Amino acid sequence: MASFLGDKIKVSVFGESHGPAIGMVMDSPPAGIKIDFEALRQELDRRAPGNDPTATKRKEADIPEFLSGLKDGVTTGAPLTAIIKNTSQRSKDYSELEVKPRPSHADYAAAVHYGGFNDISGGGHFSGRLTAPLVIAGAILKQYLKTKGITVGGHIFQIGSVEDKPLDPVNVSAEQLDEIKTRSFPLNDASLEEKLRNEVALAAKRGDSVGGIIEIAVTGVKAGFGGPMFDGVENIISRAVFGIPAVKGIEFGLGFGFGSAVGSEANDPMTVNNGKVVCKTNNCGGITGGITNSMPIIFRCAIKPTPSISMMQETVNLEKMANTTLEIKGRHDPCIVPRALPAIEAVTAIAVANLLQEVSLF
Amino acid sequence: MASFLGDKIKVSVFGESHGPAIGMVMDSPPAGIKIDFEALRQELDRRAPGNDPTATKRKEADIPEFLSGLKDGVTTGAPLTAIIKNTSQRSKDYSELEVKPRPSHADYAAAVHYGGFNDISGGGHFSGRLTAPLVIAGAILKQYLKTKGITVGGHIFQIGSVEDKPLDPVNVSAEQLDEIKTRSFPLNDASLEEKLRNEVALAAKRGDSVGGIIEIAVTGVKAGFGGPMFDGVENIISRAVFGIPAVKGIEFGLGFGFGSAVGSEANDPMTVNNGKVVCKTNNCGGITGGITNSMPIIFRCAIKPTPSISMMQETVNLEKMANTTLEIKGRHDPCIVPRALPAIEAVTAIAVANLLQEVSLF
Amino acid sequence: MASFLGDKIKVSVFGESHGPAIGMVMDSPPAGIKIDFEALRQELDRRAPGNDPTATKRKEADIPEFLSGLKDGVTTGAPLTAIIKNTSQRSKDYSELEVKPRPSHADYAAAVHYGGFNDISGGGHFSGRLTAPLVIAGAILKQYLKTKGITVGGHIFQIGSVEDKPLDPVNVSAEQLDEIKTRSFPLNDASLEEKLRNEVALAAKRGDSVGGIIEIAVTGVKAGFGGPMFDGVENIISRAVFGIPAVKGIEFGLGFGFGSAVGSEANDPMTVNNGKVVCKTNNCGGITGGITNSMPIIFRCAIKPTPSISMMQETVNLEKMANTTLEIKGRHDPCIVPRALPAIEAVTAIAVANLLQEVSLF
Amino acid sequence: MASFLGDKIKVSVFGESHGPAIGMVMDSPPAGIKIDFEALRQELDRRAPGNDPTATKRKEADIPEFLSGLKDGVTTGAPLTAIIKNTSQRSKDYSELEVKPRPSHADYAAAVHYGGFNDISGGGHFSGRLTAPLVIAGAILKQYLKTKGITVGGHIFQIGSVEDKPLDPVNVSAEQLDEIKTRSFPLNDASLEEKLRNEVALAAKRGDSVGGIIEIAVTGVKAGFGGPMFDGVENIISRAVFGIPAVKGIEFGLGFGFGSAVGSEANDPMTVNNGKVVCKTNNCGGITGGITNSMPIIFRCAIKPTPSISMMQETVNLEKMANTTLEIKGRHDPCIVPRALPAIEAVTAIAVANLLQEVSLF
Repeated sequence: MASFLGDKIKVSVFGESHGPAIGMVMDSPPAGIKIDFEALRQELDRRAPGNDPTATKRKEADIPEFLSGLKDGVTTGAPLTAIIKNTSQRSKDYSELEVKPRPSHADYAAAVHYGGFNDISGGGHFSGRLTAPLVIAGAILKQYLKTKGITVGGHIFQIGSVEDKPLDPVNVSAEQLDEIKTRSFPLNDASLEEKLRNEVALAAKRGDSVGGIIEIAVTGVKAGFGGPMFDGVENIISRAVFGIPAVKGIEFGLGFGFGSAVGSEANDPMTVNNGKVVCKTNNCGGITGGITNSMPIIFRCAIKPTPSISMMQETVNLEKMANTTLEIKGRHDPCIVPRALPAIEAVTAIAVANLLQEVSLF
Repeated sequence: MASFLGDKIKVSVFGESHGPAIGMVMDSPPAGIKIDFEALRQELDRRAPGNDPTATKRKEADIPEFLSGLKDGVTTGAPLTAIIKNTSQRSKDYSELEVKPRPSHADYAAAVHYGGFNDISGGGHFSGRLTAPLVIAGAILKQYLKTKGITVGGHIFQIGSVEDKPLDPVNVSAEQLDEIKTRSFPLNDASLEEKLRNEVALAAKRGDSVGGIIEIAVTGVKAGFGGPMFDGVENIISRAVFGIPAVKGIEFGLGFGFGSAVGSEANDPMTVNNGKVVCKTNNCGGITGGITNSMPIIFRCAIKPTPSISMMQETVNLEKMANTTLEIKGRHDPCIVPRALPAIEAVTAIAVANLLQEVSLF
Repeated sequence: MASFLGDKIKVSVFGESHGPAIGMVMDSPPAGIKIDFEALRQELDRRAPGNDPTATKRKEADIPEFLSGLKDGVTTGAPLTAIIKNTSQRSKDYSELEVKPRPSHADYAAAVHYGGFNDISGGGHFSGRLTAPLVIAGAILKQYLKTKGITVGGHIFQIGSVEDKPLDPVNVSAEQLDEIKTRSFPLNDASLEEKLRNEVALAAKRGDSVGGIIEIAVTGVKAGFGGPMFDGVENIISRAVFGIPAVKGIEFGLGFGFGSAVGSEANDPMTVNNGKVVCKTNNCGGITGGITNSMPIIFRCAIKPTPSISMMQETVNLEKMANTTLEIKGRHDPCIVPRALPAIEAVTAIAVANLLQEVSLF
Repeated sequence: MASFLGDKIKVSVFGESHGPAIGMVMDSPPAGIKIDFEALRQELDRRAPGNDPTATKRKEADIPEFLSGLKDGVTTGAPLTAIIKNTSQRSKDYSELEVKPRPSHADYAAAVHYGGFNDISGGGHFSGRLTAPLVIAGAILKQYLKTKGITVGGHIFQIGSVEDKPLDPVNVSAEQLDEIKTRSFPLNDASLEEKLRNEVALAAKRGDSVGGIIEIAVTGVKAGFGGPMFDGVENIISRAVFGIPAVKGIEFGLGFGFGSAVGSEANDPMTVNNGKVVCKTNNCGGITGGITNSMPIIFRCAIKPTPSISMMQETVNLEKMANTTLEIKGRHDPCIVPRALPAIEAVTAIAVANLLQEVSLF
């Protein structure tokens, strides 16, 4: 029942879509991180709505206020708290949704879980808006990771039936990942922008939505982080990534491709390169036995089409326990994938920063 | 660095492939579970090697000894401990592998992580053999779940290029899942056995290995278990499932299929059936907003081909920091998928049993 | 390194004495608690400075603002966040204290722990002011506990050389505990007020401070909550209570008195009373084997005199690594005991509310 | 409900007094600790019964068998498991105790907690015998701490009305602590042995038991370990120490003495000594703000007289819900204090070893 991430650097997320504020407490960041507020703002802009035709036209300011944990812009090591005030609070009438749960949304499951006490306006605590505080946490930890030579980044791997060019799992570089972040439509192959945008436009025109796949890489992680069984890198990252609404799958390296592979082709041959042990291929996605092996960490995650669509849908009336239909009003993201990317990067940064907190060997 | 699973019913796994014993401590099971030891033995047999041509011919007894937590075969509520003594201890010479890590195995990453102190004989703590204690824990919790009307089961979804018939995500039944468990080759469509076995045989003949996909269903879970963000059902199950060696991906419901889907087709329409709120389809895999929605929980996970193959492979000599080759000797599983199935079921049972420990609503 | 309390209802505390705000996130309260805001205000007033001659004359408003987790004043079950804005921020000059740590304060230890990055103004995150958010959390959970028939309360047991009348560990009642809370000087025997106040006044006159002991009782907890070894009631309450600055000892029931006791006198004889199993005495403080036994939970904790005194003290200059002296300026609490009482009650309420979240027996 | 200690190096304890075996899993020790098995045996002997007239005459072998985590006597970094087989299993008839709970024992509380399924023979999981696996864990971590210059030790501070000479909180040394460990009756002032033994003999003669106080010191811990609020040194040690049966109080440094102290006398003046910041006194017990301050960690804990006495006691018959009496048969420790000392040291070592696992500053 907890909105916490991390077991060493714990990030606690709070707020509802239409409540007074959303925010996060990080307990506790390493002391001494000098925050680059401009870089932080850019990360928030990547997630914010209204900046791109693929997103909802709602405008949200997303200006973080820091309440604790900073002295002169440097982390003190005490819990770091930032909030974003909500500008539009409970303006709309949500009474219809209280009795008619939206298909494939959290509405019905949450009503049961919370005995009907949950706030459903704008999705409440289940809103994608809650990823904004995660992006704050992630942006700060990305800056911390940079000082350790580590870069977290990614791109839109697929929208609908159109794929971007995959990252090269062996040679992906920090520079490349940082370059993609500057793009308003974060593809690896920018020439494909129109084709992918077209998938979104087609869905939007129908009042429909479309899903996609995001690919993430983490470069610069040395070998040896993680561990066997349940606190390995895959365990920790997957737990983090499923915290982002709409994620329904994750695969590392070759992932589901392993299902039809044979060992002789899938195994990553090892070699010595410039005095370092590396792999010639990276089908394992940088992780063997739950532990980093010095290769880039590579994973992809599946994003379901946002369930808020304008078309009429079948649902139930919980009061009457009868079938009914529902048309969801308001402005929706026809494709959440571009805005989900910085959120996925953020939780990945939180996960990787936690991995680094293991004390070095005896 | 921890081999623990669960935050309420915690299962701690210990042991190495060739050490004196492997085992698990469950702290703590619900008091009052009367263990069906015959059912437990059957679960262990499903995982044991030597019982099927797809598996290694090594014979392991896998007889659990209970050290604590039972009185007259009933759980007392104190920590429950079971061990399996290893019969073949460190007979082989592993000195070659100490300097030549096996490609796509944990060897190199673990050597760095543990500063070279780790036991590599038979894979040490990273061995698939460590799934046996998990199967003990899972078998006991499956019996507990049965008393709550919940059944965990699954089948081989794919091996190499051949697929089994998928489970029906809406109508899959406890009876069907229990029936599949009785099959020596656990397919949903038994008529496909020869085709799937053939994929394994082809790989085995070449000294190669082949990967696959496993599909799991959990029936009978009421709506309302789980929670938003990081302690939701997907988070908890994915963390558990990545604890099984060779798992490299997981997807719930439509999973990666959502990447090319549109909302109007992917959303699950809701309806009232016999006075209960249900969905007409189950693309969400029984989970919305991280919370169960009364539909069967459905997921699939990708299993990489076991990296132990007989063919010559490129690796490095860590002492000389030079390239070299390696031929792995001994008997290996050409396909680990059938034996991984009960292990995946086991950690799923542990995860679901933990979900049930949430106190009911205020 | 974490300012968290609770493993089921987790309370995260953040803020610094002179930062923008202090606050807490409770992840997550039971859904459906209707908050009595007037009762909450009274609890905060009990802790607030400036209300009593024993306390510092500093005036702080301590008005909570709720940022999340409430709908119409009722908990939704999502993370509940409240902040208190600091009205006096970093007005004073703390540069002397940066090089001259105050004896018996956190200053030196914290400087080492945080590499000098910590905020020392007003004590930073170590300030007693951080107990205000705990009182918010505790007040809300006290209201929750009341609905379960449980009352948490206490009194000043001792200040300096003067003792209040102890609570009767067998017959202490909810009414008595609630009555004490209404007193501006919370003694069990109100006739002793002048004598105890005099201890404070004597210390204050000299520019000195004085310590004391607080006694807490929890009534109405049924038998069976807690557990053996490390998650028992004493473990959980002691971990909570040592989170309040200045607490240096805790004892349950007869406590250190057991050191000179014999079993035949210290054991609590059992008897049936009105069809219930009870004890005739309560030397065990309501806890046997780490588990509640239906008797009131009783404990006392030692509060050290606040180390901030006006008298000259010996310390070191960290820059010059030389001996020096220090006179701490400003207004200080000559006795923190009265203000510590609601904070101790608050963390006790958090601990007990967590104990109740155990799922009932199989 | 969990018998776990530690959040980084987790020690899980299992077993019942009369079950097949007791044991512990440490997940995970630092890799590379070369275990001194002779020193480990000596620690177990300090705890074992039958070695001293103050203890029960029962003889238990307490020979640890290591099941995992070792290679050539060196920790591998994988979970370390050791068991001790119980030699006397359920010989006695415990049927009377099933309906007549022993006063001040866990019996009644545990019966409620576990719904009557718990094993009460010999105290089951609540038996003091469960401290033997903790001593194994503690002995190994003491050896680890020694390599970091840290020593954990203690002495009998008081039995009944007789006190040993306290440790000097400023000058206590590792040598002194190690010397006390070699004594069969571990006093600081060996000349007091007869007087303290006499307290035990007097109680034993009457069929009674007597309580006491244990004092612990930890030398060699550098400043900076721990943290504010709930994960500070006092929080972590107190949670650990209350895991030892019969502990009912803990105080750090001056402890309850602070209750009647004034700040000007209780504060620890600071000074520079040989280029190091130290305190002239150590009333804070080595901890300020929850963080070590370079002085020895000093605490005392109260041990209640073992509730198993031969004299007739009042109790209830749970079946008949009627008052009755009970005479507990068998051999009991008239004073558990000497045997509790190595157990308290052990959990202290586990707590301190965990504190050291914090990653150093940014």
